[in-house]
Amino acid sequence: MIAAPAATEHGPLAIICGGGSLPLAVADSVSERGRPVLLFPLHGEADPAGMDRHPHHWLYLGQGGKFQRLARAAGCRDVVLIGSLVRPSLWQIRPDFTTLMEFPRIVAAFRGGDDHLLSSIAGLFERHGFHLLGAHDVAPEILMPEGSLGAVQPSASDRADIALAFDYLWAAGPFDVGQAAVVAGQHVLAVEAAEGTDAMLARVAEMRANGRVRSPAGSGVLVKAPKPDQDRRFDLPSIGPRTVEAAARAGLAGIAVTAGSTIVAEPEALIAAANRAKLFVFGAAAENKR
Amino acid sequence: MIAAPAATEHGPLAIICGGGSLPLAVADSVSERGRPVLLFPLHGEADPAGMDRHPHHWLYLGQGGKFQRLARAAGCRDVVLIGSLVRPSLWQIRPDFTTLMEFPRIVAAFRGGDDHLLSSIAGLFERHGFHLLGAHDVAPEILMPEGSLGAVQPSASDRADIALAFDYLWAAGPFDVGQAAVVAGQHVLAVEAAEGTDAMLARVAEMRANGRVRSPAGSGVLVKAPKPDQDRRFDLPSIGPRTVEAAARAGLAGIAVTAGSTIVAEPEALIAAANRAKLFVFGAAAENKR
Repeated sequence: MIAAPAATEHGPLAIICGGGSLPLAVADSVSERGRPVLLFPLHGEADPAGMDRHPHHWLYLGQGGKFQRLARAAGCRDVVLIGSLVRPSLWQIRPDFTTLMEFPRIVAAFRGGDDHLLSSIAGLFERHGFHLLGAHDVAPEILMPEGSLGAVQPSASDRADIALAFDYLWAAGPFDVGQAAVVAGQHVLAVEAAEGTDAMLARVAEMRANGRVRSPAGSGVLVKAPKPDQDRRFDLPSIGPRTVEAAARAGLAGIAVTAGSTIVAEPEALIAAANRAKLFVFGAAAENKR
Repeated sequence: MIAAPAATEHGPLAIICGGGSLPLAVADSVSERGRPVLLFPLHGEADPAGMDRHPHHWLYLGQGGKFQRLARAAGCRDVVLIGSLVRPSLWQIRPDFTTLMEFPRIVAAFRGGDDHLLSSIAGLFERHGFHLLGAHDVAPEILMPEGSLGAVQPSASDRADIALAFDYLWAAGPFDVGQAAVVAGQHVLAVEAAEGTDAMLARVAEMRANGRVRSPAGSGVLVKAPKPDQDRRFDLPSIGPRTVEAAARAGLAGIAVTAGSTIVAEPEALIAAANRAKLFVFGAAAENKR
């Protein structure tokens, strides 16, 4: 007899939902697989549309006590954090009593880069007896496979640009900089830091329009990679149809990510967008990771 | 008897002038020191104001034959390239016959990053018997000294941000990315690639305005460094009063550069701007270089 998977041992899965389409995609997937879910959408971040498909309780950032009470009452032990979250200000947090007790740790967590913030938040959950899982642990089909999604394949020169971008991202990783870069013709055009991938791609589009970047439209790649020591339970890089559209506006030939450690949001829409724009979306094998 | 310096051995100094105030500052300095200069301002790049102070001939990019003829006729052997130059398109070059002969090399030079382009251009001059010098070889006072210019000193936390930024820049250097980054509270906010320092600082100002960056105004540093294997005869990083003003608009505490390998344009105006904005402008000792 095979041991029951951890998923069924600890009751419903608590999913704390940030922005974007991923939280509901993960909730639907887990729920279809037979495990009940309990969603905790965050005010100001999560999209209310579709939330009624699952039992849920809205939370403000900082309502650690409310989360604990509701999650424990429902029998949840496993927690997934998923979706975008604009790096909040300490002053946006509305702490309840439980969160207030943690405030020295939270203030400390806010110093330093995003990696530090996220691993500190993970620690808070673990200290209160919850078990933090990655979204891909509960819904592995959201991860990018190896090879191309869609009809277009990267050319030899695209592959050379992809390799240079991965080399750069692995070198820059220890500095908790962003997780993305744009390379065209072996020239690094843009590097993401706090501005996010969409803003970086808009910059490339602008540099092409104003003549600062002269590589021809239809050349260049967006490459996203997890940081070398990233905690895979949260903050994996993700791509979706909007990433494809932004890459197309930036005149790129395609997008490459690391297979098995990148989340693909709305894969059908992404493939349709990529085929429409004649962009490749490529999952590089793990050997590309340093 | 001390050997005559190389400067006087080879006749007037030819200065090929890009944009900004540095070309005239170098020309004035060399000329005040007693060595005649012959300027070659580039159409579309060099500022015509003040050019009449020195003998000069305007050139289009690609007029290698015209340059050689005029420089040789004037007895020039030493050449300095100085000033900003937006990375040109091959199609903007108006090649004369001499340049045309070099076109296979020029086309090859345009592949790859800026470092590659610049060292290839240097090779072209050397092959035609010219001797390429750095602006700091002929006008060493344009280089940033150690310590603070102006009245403000970096704090201990500023120094920690400076150290992190230098570490990042040295790690990213081999990839021919930009030469500048903004760090605040040990968090890398922005990294320069093809967009240039001014655009990167404008992005930081925008991220502060739209709440994406939440570190308080008056914190954070702009750090510029030469790439590890940069050919110091051209393309040293430079700062000037406009850099200070852009850093002030981005709400930074100051600017740090490597002493002895950064060019300071208009130092009096830069110091006045820094004191007015209460920003430090700090030259880090060479020990900061990896």
